[in-house]
Amino acid sequence: MNIGILGLGTVGGGVVNVINKNTKEIERRTGSQLNITHAAIKNLNEKTICPTDNINLTEDAFEVVNNKDIDVILELIGGIDFAKKLVETAIKNGKHVITANKALIATHGNELLSLAKKHNTHLLFEASVAGGIPILKSLEQGLGANKIELIAGIINGTGNFILTEMRNKGRDFADVLKEAQELGYAEADPTYDVEGVDAAHKLAILSSMAFGCKLELDQVSTIGISQIEGEDVSYADELGYSIKHLGIAKKINGQIEMRVHPTLIPKKRLIANVDGVMNAVLIKGNAVGNTLYYGAGAGSDATASAVIADLLDLVNGTVNDGTLGWKELIEFTTIETGSVESIFYLRLIATDKPGVLANITSTLADHNISIEAVVQKQIDSLNNAHIAIITNKVKTAEITDAIKQIQQHEFIKDSVKLIHVETLE
Amino acid sequence: MNIGILGLGTVGGGVVNVINKNTKEIERRTGSQLNITHAAIKNLNEKTICPTDNINLTEDAFEVVNNKDIDVILELIGGIDFAKKLVETAIKNGKHVITANKALIATHGNELLSLAKKHNTHLLFEASVAGGIPILKSLEQGLGANKIELIAGIINGTGNFILTEMRNKGRDFADVLKEAQELGYAEADPTYDVEGVDAAHKLAILSSMAFGCKLELDQVSTIGISQIEGEDVSYADELGYSIKHLGIAKKINGQIEMRVHPTLIPKKRLIANVDGVMNAVLIKGNAVGNTLYYGAGAGSDATASAVIADLLDLVNGTVNDGTLGWKELIEFTTIETGSVESIFYLRLIATDKPGVLANITSTLADHNISIEAVVQKQIDSLNNAHIAIITNKVKTAEITDAIKQIQQHEFIKDSVKLIHVETLE
Repeated sequence: MNIGILGLGTVGGGVVNVINKNTKEIERRTGSQLNITHAAIKNLNEKTICPTDNINLTEDAFEVVNNKDIDVILELIGGIDFAKKLVETAIKNGKHVITANKALIATHGNELLSLAKKHNTHLLFEASVAGGIPILKSLEQGLGANKIELIAGIINGTGNFILTEMRNKGRDFADVLKEAQELGYAEADPTYDVEGVDAAHKLAILSSMAFGCKLELDQVSTIGISQIEGEDVSYADELGYSIKHLGIAKKINGQIEMRVHPTLIPKKRLIANVDGVMNAVLIKGNAVGNTLYYGAGAGSDATASAVIADLLDLVNGTVNDGTLGWKELIEFTTIETGSVESIFYLRLIATDKPGVLANITSTLADHNISIEAVVQKQIDSLNNAHIAIITNKVKTAEITDAIKQIQQHEFIKDSVKLIHVETLE
Repeated sequence: MNIGILGLGTVGGGVVNVINKNTKEIERRTGSQLNITHAAIKNLNEKTICPTDNINLTEDAFEVVNNKDIDVILELIGGIDFAKKLVETAIKNGKHVITANKALIATHGNELLSLAKKHNTHLLFEASVAGGIPILKSLEQGLGANKIELIAGIINGTGNFILTEMRNKGRDFADVLKEAQELGYAEADPTYDVEGVDAAHKLAILSSMAFGCKLELDQVSTIGISQIEGEDVSYADELGYSIKHLGIAKKINGQIEMRVHPTLIPKKRLIANVDGVMNAVLIKGNAVGNTLYYGAGAGSDATASAVIADLLDLVNGTVNDGTLGWKELIEFTTIETGSVESIFYLRLIATDKPGVLANITSTLADHNISIEAVVQKQIDSLNNAHIAIITNKVKTAEITDAIKQIQQHEFIKDSVKLIHVETLE
């Protein structure tokens, strides 16, 4: 099997390096050598992070996908439009494609998977979600006997790094983001990471694999972490929670909900203790119960590990010939955001005068929202009351309504903050 | 594909129940139905935990393994000798076999796998290690590109339940063991669980899958948890550690070490927070880094989840045709116990008189053992000094020697306690 790589950057270079350093093991896994014959790179004069001695290099990626001697293409350049053209061409040329490109799969996966089916080739993308953690294969094979009820994943390392630093060191969002950019964890334009776009891509892929339905990126309701303040982090801590940016997918009465948002999780849950740039995905199946998969969500060799795992499956003939791991996909309807049921955390800043808390709690009660925990403090120089509340489980529409009403009181000093709480039991 | 089940107890009954409740999902996974045609049970008059309406029942297990219409046998009766005869007969009859039987695989896996190869059938056993956690498939496929450097697993739920209760509630070993037996977590004869035999079986299987070598159960050095006292648990806590019963396998300079023993782990490691009957396995690969897999290690439906996962792989044709996931196995040598390097925890009880600590520490220093942390307390009514010490990394032979020497002093009041420490970095 001859392999062509598009891109020898962090991931592509990692693939070559890992194949080189684990040659013997890989040969014992497959009974043959993995033969990287061609690679396309942006600039032939630029140094790569891997040796390229026995690889034919070109700046023209189409030369690689059109090469008749190549059987498998590894698409590792990222981005959407150009990558899509290359993958389409490779598939039409009868080649298998392995990609780490979550944006490409989340936005064009359905048509690319159909195209691959039509041309009898495989399109594999283990590396697109949670880097080196073999989470897609686990959903497809190891957990294949289950009805999946819940996915809850820390699937963006940059966001988790920022939230961890905010909690452990009491630092500000903006300050940590700047450091993350300097460390190379976050891009110059951090929107994809901090506004949840990257996590939404991954959640759409996880959901489709888990529930056996088409990719529906636009059905993922997405909130980033940029609005989280230090005050929320410390209230959460005091109330027994950690704030994590989660991708959550649930199947309830045949309907699916997909949402990415900051979430308060009880500190005693294992996933609440996943810190720094690490990723973890909790999967609840109706037979297996709660399982968790933890590891590096990014990085050169870790992502390469997942790309090569797909390659081994191809060479060993252990690829499922269904679509997204299913022989038959189902249609599904999404639960409207207003109907999503959740526990919530509210934070309010109000003038400290008699009756304020009574007023707030009675408005909540009018909406059938009861209070599980409350903390009130005077922590600013203006003697305002800062109030944090944990509610019972309510419909999103109900709490949104209640907040609209509370917000109108003249004693409310700032926007009421609303964050999801998940017990993950 | 027609399926015959041996045993409809906790696991076998669970398999039928899970297939019944997830029929639609399983059909969408395979494109066909899983057809359980026959089952052997101990006593036809005893009620099973699953419906048996469309299953031909017999008390003669050989009737099932000799039935020409059956393609796959699920061996779920446990035990070694009788199960072995049944599995051999099934394989010789050309049938695939799926088993949850760790004792059988750990003791006779090599010859059974050879037999299966000879008869062109598959012998699969995902359920034999860590119940519903898809750990063997992850080693075989998802992490297949890695050189595995370390396995560290909480792979006996009973032991973990006992240690968790001792830590959280300050209870005694014997007291918790009794409760575990009442709850059905531990057998009437708890030797397999508390003396580490069950964990050794599972570690032997994990090692062979990870390193690609034959099963060598007798090379696993095994210490149980029955010698752990409340005092050790609280010293560990004070020093920043949690005591877990770990199965550890490492590959160092081409040699393999396999050991099962109580281990102090830094409390901040994720695996140190895996409590109760839950299992978790940490796998460190040279490309992926540290990954962790967590879930239920036992239970009817959770174990069934793993059995059926193997069945899905068989039906979908996604089974690796190597042995233990490898096309070629290697020979290996085991590191002698004396040469194993480890950090250690020591606990000593000594007469409280001047020079005792100096005497102990200078004996350690004579053996090139330095001290990373020490706590000394007077906690008994005899005014003895109770001393807990964490050493640097030393050869096991060195510390054993040093302890022999320390033990001879007349001021030492009891056997010196020695427990491994692993930082799992």
